[in-house]
Amino acid sequence: MPPAETAARENAVDVTALLERGRTLSTPVLRAAVDRLAPPMDTVSAYHFGWIDAAGNPASGDGGKAVRPALAVLSAEVTGAAPEAGIPGAVAVELVHNFSLLHDDLMDGDEQRRHRDTVWKVHGPAQAILVGDALFALANEVLLELGTVEAGRATRRLTSATRALIDGQAQDISYEHRDRVSVAECLEMEGNKTGALLACASSIGAVLGGADDRTADTLEKYGYHLGLAFQAVDDLLGIWGDPVSTGKQTWSDLRQRKKSLPVVAALAAGGPASERLGEILAADAKSSDFATFSEEEFAARAALIEEAGGREWTTEEARRQHTVAVEALDAVDMPDRVREQFVALADFVVVRKR
Amino acid sequence: MPPAETAARENAVDVTALLERGRTLSTPVLRAAVDRLAPPMDTVSAYHFGWIDAAGNPASGDGGKAVRPALAVLSAEVTGAAPEAGIPGAVAVELVHNFSLLHDDLMDGDEQRRHRDTVWKVHGPAQAILVGDALFALANEVLLELGTVEAGRATRRLTSATRALIDGQAQDISYEHRDRVSVAECLEMEGNKTGALLACASSIGAVLGGADDRTADTLEKYGYHLGLAFQAVDDLLGIWGDPVSTGKQTWSDLRQRKKSLPVVAALAAGGPASERLGEILAADAKSSDFATFSEEEFAARAALIEEAGGREWTTEEARRQHTVAVEALDAVDMPDRVREQFVALADFVVVRKR
Repeated sequence: MPPAETAARENAVDVTALLERGRTLSTPVLRAAVDRLAPPMDTVSAYHFGWIDAAGNPASGDGGKAVRPALAVLSAEVTGAAPEAGIPGAVAVELVHNFSLLHDDLMDGDEQRRHRDTVWKVHGPAQAILVGDALFALANEVLLELGTVEAGRATRRLTSATRALIDGQAQDISYEHRDRVSVAECLEMEGNKTGALLACASSIGAVLGGADDRTADTLEKYGYHLGLAFQAVDDLLGIWGDPVSTGKQTWSDLRQRKKSLPVVAALAAGGPASERLGEILAADAKSSDFATFSEEEFAARAALIEEAGGREWTTEEARRQHTVAVEALDAVDMPDRVREQFVALADFVVVRKR
Repeated sequence: MPPAETAARENAVDVTALLERGRTLSTPVLRAAVDRLAPPMDTVSAYHFGWIDAAGNPASGDGGKAVRPALAVLSAEVTGAAPEAGIPGAVAVELVHNFSLLHDDLMDGDEQRRHRDTVWKVHGPAQAILVGDALFALANEVLLELGTVEAGRATRRLTSATRALIDGQAQDISYEHRDRVSVAECLEMEGNKTGALLACASSIGAVLGGADDRTADTLEKYGYHLGLAFQAVDDLLGIWGDPVSTGKQTWSDLRQRKKSLPVVAALAAGGPASERLGEILAADAKSSDFATFSEEEFAARAALIEEAGGREWTTEEARRQHTVAVEALDAVDMPDRVREQFVALADFVVVRKR
């Protein structure tokens, strides 16, 4: 999509306001849900969400981009319902997302998230497991206590998304132990880890608003491909992102030896740069000095990935997935204003810098 | 309840056959559900359930007493439905139970369960977390894919039970760091960890069969108190059980410094034995040689608990909870034969030796 068109769309819809609306509508309900947890799980959750610091003092944490809650409340409007009808869905999706973050950080041994020590690092592994479990259970509770047929359907979709999320994490773990991962395997994993929950976020408000299965499936298609676009951009930012914007180290994903899309695409491309990259990464995997590598060594790897075409392929892939996402919307009957907002969110996802 | 009466009831209902029926009806559906998991989660689950050994060879593991599946299929018959109507409920409850075992064993650092190494010990902590999550999600899936209003209600009750289970584990962890736990706190924790899921098992078949909320609540009351009776007996077996029957070490719970009912009741009783016990356990908590304690040292602690009245109080508590459980059944209209079977299961729980 030409930049001019993006700019025009973004002028038409205020994405910042759209994200803010999702956050404003869902956060109080999310906090009330978390407050139901027995001590110390309420406090540990509040730390995880960035509402308090490790000492228990109030904090105004970076709550993330809040794309999911924005999608969930927007999707309620597909059926003509008020955005508020999507709130329990937004909250449930956020709870599942954060359940997975708590467990994944522990499984992966990640010590930092959003510039802060992760829960297992601060409160210990047992609390990370327990509070993750509690958030997962709470997600179902928040939906099912609505007591409607629609809530049952929404929970079923959320359950499928959660299963996919878990499958994706299983794939991610297994890929770590492998020398090579194909582009198709990487996309499958990213579809599970990122696509499935964005798909659920994009349809759950509509389901709660009474949308039929065909409408919900189509909105899920939009969200799934939006998720793949989102992840492709994330993978680009993970290597070439500006540390000031992303809050991550330079060459962050390379430091973690992540087999992200630019890497697997570069390795699959063939040619001299691709082969050289393959040799270097194979040696890195066995290297015991990896932790002490200099800035220049990572820059050299990033340059090879780019030379082999991994950066360009991933940039194109983000555009392709964006296009599929936006085209999916054509198959759903919805108010024009709602459609424009879905498109604007999709545009935001591919142009974002963090 | 006099032993003669117990014997008469057990003659009337073949509890072994009742437990076997629950196991026979639910196991194939449970295995089919677990088979849906992506590798290696299917294999890790199969190991956990005792269907294969650590090398992946078929095994005929000790599947446990199978009280929960027996209750779930029996409860379907309350409404006049066939026992088969309770199968998805039985499977979902077993999945949640095993999700909690996988996570609790890791949080508690327990290396053995049912005479075998625990999952985290064999397959690592990440798999224990991941597969636990997968079983939890699968439990919801198995119910919600029925697509009925009743399945939504059953899932909501299962979610409440799961939240209680998690609360109980949070309490269990926090009690470990405390010198004293009151009898009320111990009962609350056991109600959460054991009562809530047995309550759900006792009502879920009925809910799937279309029972109203009052009937389900009353069956939950039966199951909750049955759970407390079950746990009181477990706590007695954890200290005075015959290792040949229980498959655990002698003085098993004392070796783990568990603040189980006989211990907290003995400490609360007052008097010379109670005070002496308090001093000894306080010293044990700080002792660095605890791991090398002799058989006699544990026997001396067990004798003090008994002398202070902890054994008798817990035995009486099991009887009291059994009575409350059985009396709850009076408030539900059900076929006489079904009522007799519920009573027989309650009797079995309090007389069991393992």
